Amino acid sequence: MRKFDQQQIEQILKKRFFITQSAYIYGGVSGLYDLGPPGLSIKTNILSLWRKHFVLEEDMLEIETTTMLPHDVLKASGHVDKFCDILVFDEVSGDCFRADHLVGDALEKMSPTEEISKELQKVDCMSCQEIDEIISKYNIRSTLGNKLSKSQQFNLMFGTQIGYKGGQTMFLRPETAQGQFLNFKKLCEYNNDKLPFASASIGKAYRNEISPRSGLLRVREFDQAEIEHFVLTDEKDHPKFSTVQGIKLKLMHHDASEEITLKEAIERGIVCNETMGYYIGRTALFLIELGIDRELLRFRQHKKDEMAHYAKGCWDAEIYTSYGWIECVGIADRACYDLSCHEDGSKVDLRCKRRLAEPKEIEEWVLKLDKKEWGAKLRDRFSVLMETVNGLSQKYIEKNVVSIGENRNRLSVKFDEYTINIECSRVKKKVFVENVIPDVIEPSFGIGRILYALIEHSFYLREDSRPVFRFKPAIAPVQCAIGYLIHFDEFNEHILNIKRFLTDNGLVVHVNERSCSIGRKYSSCDELGIPFFITFDPDFLKDRMVTIRERDSMQQIRVDVEKCPSIVLEYIRGQSRWN
Amino acid sequence: MRKFDQQQIEQILKKRFFITQSAYIYGGVSGLYDLGPPGLSIKTNILSLWRKHFVLEEDMLEIETTTMLPHDVLKASGHVDKFCDILVFDEVSGDCFRADHLVGDALEKMSPTEEISKELQKVDCMSCQEIDEIISKYNIRSTLGNKLSKSQQFNLMFGTQIGYKGGQTMFLRPETAQGQFLNFKKLCEYNNDKLPFASASIGKAYRNEISPRSGLLRVREFDQAEIEHFVLTDEKDHPKFSTVQGIKLKLMHHDASEEITLKEAIERGIVCNETMGYYIGRTALFLIELGIDRELLRFRQHKKDEMAHYAKGCWDAEIYTSYGWIECVGIADRACYDLSCHEDGSKVDLRCKRRLAEPKEIEEWVLKLDKKEWGAKLRDRFSVLMETVNGLSQKYIEKNVVSIGENRNRLSVKFDEYTINIECSRVKKKVFVENVIPDVIEPSFGIGRILYALIEHSFYLREDSRPVFRFKPAIAPVQCAIGYLIHFDEFNEHILNIKRFLTDNGLVVHVNERSCSIGRKYSSCDELGIPFFITFDPDFLKDRMVTIRERDSMQQIRVDVEKCPSIVLEYIRGQSRWN
Repeated sequence: MRKFDQQQIEQILKKRFFITQSAYIYGGVSGLYDLGPPGLSIKTNILSLWRKHFVLEEDMLEIETTTMLPHDVLKASGHVDKFCDILVFDEVSGDCFRADHLVGDALEKMSPTEEISKELQKVDCMSCQEIDEIISKYNIRSTLGNKLSKSQQFNLMFGTQIGYKGGQTMFLRPETAQGQFLNFKKLCEYNNDKLPFASASIGKAYRNEISPRSGLLRVREFDQAEIEHFVLTDEKDHPKFSTVQGIKLKLMHHDASEEITLKEAIERGIVCNETMGYYIGRTALFLIELGIDRELLRFRQHKKDEMAHYAKGCWDAEIYTSYGWIECVGIADRACYDLSCHEDGSKVDLRCKRRLAEPKEIEEWVLKLDKKEWGAKLRDRFSVLMETVNGLSQKYIEKNVVSIGENRNRLSVKFDEYTINIECSRVKKKVFVENVIPDVIEPSFGIGRILYALIEHSFYLREDSRPVFRFKPAIAPVQCAIGYLIHFDEFNEHILNIKRFLTDNGLVVHVNERSCSIGRKYSSCDELGIPFFITFDPDFLKDRMVTIRERDSMQQIRVDVEKCPSIVLEYIRGQSRWN
Repeated sequence: MRKFDQQQIEQILKKRFFITQSAYIYGGVSGLYDLGPPGLSIKTNILSLWRKHFVLEEDMLEIETTTMLPHDVLKASGHVDKFCDILVFDEVSGDCFRADHLVGDALEKMSPTEEISKELQKVDCMSCQEIDEIISKYNIRSTLGNKLSKSQQFNLMFGTQIGYKGGQTMFLRPETAQGQFLNFKKLCEYNNDKLPFASASIGKAYRNEISPRSGLLRVREFDQAEIEHFVLTDEKDHPKFSTVQGIKLKLMHHDASEEITLKEAIERGIVCNETMGYYIGRTALFLIELGIDRELLRFRQHKKDEMAHYAKGCWDAEIYTSYGWIECVGIADRACYDLSCHEDGSKVDLRCKRRLAEPKEIEEWVLKLDKKEWGAKLRDRFSVLMETVNGLSQKYIEKNVVSIGENRNRLSVKFDEYTINIECSRVKKKVFVENVIPDVIEPSFGIGRILYALIEHSFYLREDSRPVFRFKPAIAPVQCAIGYLIHFDEFNEHILNIKRFLTDNGLVVHVNERSCSIGRKYSSCDELGIPFFITFDPDFLKDRMVTIRERDSMQQIRVDVEKCPSIVLEYIRGQSRWN
């Protein structure tokens, strides 16, 4: 397996301000990082490619939702109860530890038996009780050698309060997905009520890690790019699957690890449906286009006890780095779980219409609101009431309706300061569509991890040990640098012209004005992964020629200064090849 | 003054999913909004233009810093103590109100006297004591008619905790600026220690408004785009000022409101320096390029008692909307206040070098750390100690050094679990540079407000009352729609080709497959502000011609389907003009 010099890479990342610990002049905060100009530029390029590759290519509906969510939303989604780590405490010092880390590390240090390796496999998904049992069974101690307290759950969401004292409890979102589920009705309407469709969202998510380790990989604030592909449960064939079916990938599935095509994976039932297969293929293409080494990419199927009970299948794109294989993308078929949770939690109908092969007769609750009475009382709030009442889910009505005798039924709804009683009746009707909650297939990208893996995969040392990043031009933080051997005023106008032309074409250009040798200038640009360097030298005054140097081959060509901008642009865009 | 139908506009924004209240199916959270596809697309276009107009044009160093900041940082910046609103409480119901709003509204309802209008002007910047006095003087009551409690300060930052109980107190950042100040040293180094330079940052900021009003304008989570232009205090001339000096703007300054050129404003001392003038000019150009009506744009100078004591000048770009004149951009000369605060707060030297006209002799503290002793004790942490010690500011050393007799001095530094005693001495040396903290000029853009103002300025009704947004092609959420009168399979391939060509050129294209009349399709696209619509009709089968319809003129031209993509692209890019 390829080796990466983690320390050397992280040193360069720090020195060249790709990244730094947040608030470092105040001692820093572990798990929080700021991106300097080159780091941010690469991230922006990754996201721009992501948007093109997924959102634009598939006509996804991209939205942006708030990073703060109310308690009720995350209660319904399950995060308030289940988005937890298990902690144990040193009984003497009070230090706290993540139970899975502590127990895992302790077991790994013991002489391996079959039993221990079985325990090790389970350690990630143990309950508090199982943790306590295993700690007592193997007499596991804290890292300070002291006894450990009973384990307890710790919720990983950051909480805050909105408004004055006693205001609403809010959490920083643990994922961008929830904002998409909350807007499902509007998205569906925006898509003219047609299924399938996908929404997408890019943004920050938060996780209050207890003791962040693995450097840049396990952080407390991170960028996610998530897709929610809404599709009816029995319509998961994908019209464009044929465009990816020939891609051969390393798949680690329940029965074996093998390199097979997606077509075979679908035919043998290894991947559960074509839509899942399509996203696996598109994800692989995306990562490889970024510059991820395809030999160091695999897709791992979740074991059954690793998945949530409702999930129909889950595959992680794992990339090999100096930290081992790390999960960078998760692609899960989450069935109708999320929308069902929010239908229950919000009481709002989140179903969409599905055309029936033939009409059928159904019975449903119809509400009769006294419009005169409430229109007069509520005035301009009345339309909001109507919207609320019309939005109520059948499930909610069914659960809360009260019989008031003689085939009469009533539903009470709280609205503003009123309790509104609404007459309800069961009505038979013939329908041509039925209301169903669609399934969702969710490809979720950890952008920070992809960025880090890409940086490692792009790093190499020249024979003389000088470091280089071989970023592709579309990914490099700067596409082109311009410099000179010695400065002459005659250069200025030409430098500005070249820069203007390339900038107008959307590229980032550095003018290197440092007074050091050209060799040091090249090295300095190699450390940022700048693919092309244009040099003005004194001969320019005679022949109007400049030198273009390519980063990886280190070869140089001399070209006319007038033609230089378009030549470089063609190289950068890949319209012509170096050599 | 132009009038805007706020209600009608907001109805369309909601109906077409430009924007929606966050978690609306759960009743929503006031002051929090999600952006649907068209709203997000316009925002993305605004930011992309901002990046081009400011960051790329001026070679700014763009960085991205975390949205969470530790208490110490915001204590040093003054936010913990001063980022507050004053609240008053209804003594009976306990309801709380923003004092400035409540008092302002009450005074406005009184019969206007000279005294009252003076009070009204000050109401925004009153202290708790002044608020209490004015409440008692005018016998102001809560909106429920009850007596009011004494006023109190309420901090507007959202707090949270990082780590397990007793972890670090963090706040969601109230502005992106702080992240740039914290990274000043690294930015300066990245810029090869040359001044002036500017950094920039785009991101979320947060403000726990007590009772958000003014709909989309006063929100709790918002997008900021901020620039920090670091410059020596006596070097604020700007080399590119001449490129903006001829721009005529409405300036509301201390003495009058008048429309004058920036050149005149500088010459008459109305605007305090050229760098400030340059940013005012560039900001005006940016807003007008977006599509803001230049007649509804003015720059207002802050009054002296409205500015922080350290500020040397502050101008707001105000845009007129249905909510009146609203502040959308603030451009402030903040002197060296922020960096000085953080030098004090962090103890780290935040100065940069300034070449002296001639060398001079200075005396400064030099620290002698016992490298042998601490190298052996600290091992791989030793380099961090060295960095910390070398980074200490002279001011901090001066304050904390202790004499231990006979010209010997000592500084004690806490590091990890150690207290490290370092010998210090005053050393005379001849220097060619001096260390100074630069000033900062800060243009700060409220992206959500600009977005809202732009939406209002772009709105109009046709003669038949149908609504339209006249977004410029670069700003429109979708640049081109493609549809048909009646569907024929022969269209598909051509529709895909046109879409592919325009998408590859970075445009957003909608294929409109709704089965409604072409008139309704046009109206529907007008409501999204889509500038061009390409229609296939049955004649296409004979002549291979399609119709291009332009939004504002509603005129149509018929062109060959093969030439259509490049013709539309030229219109969108402004390379050829409609008619």
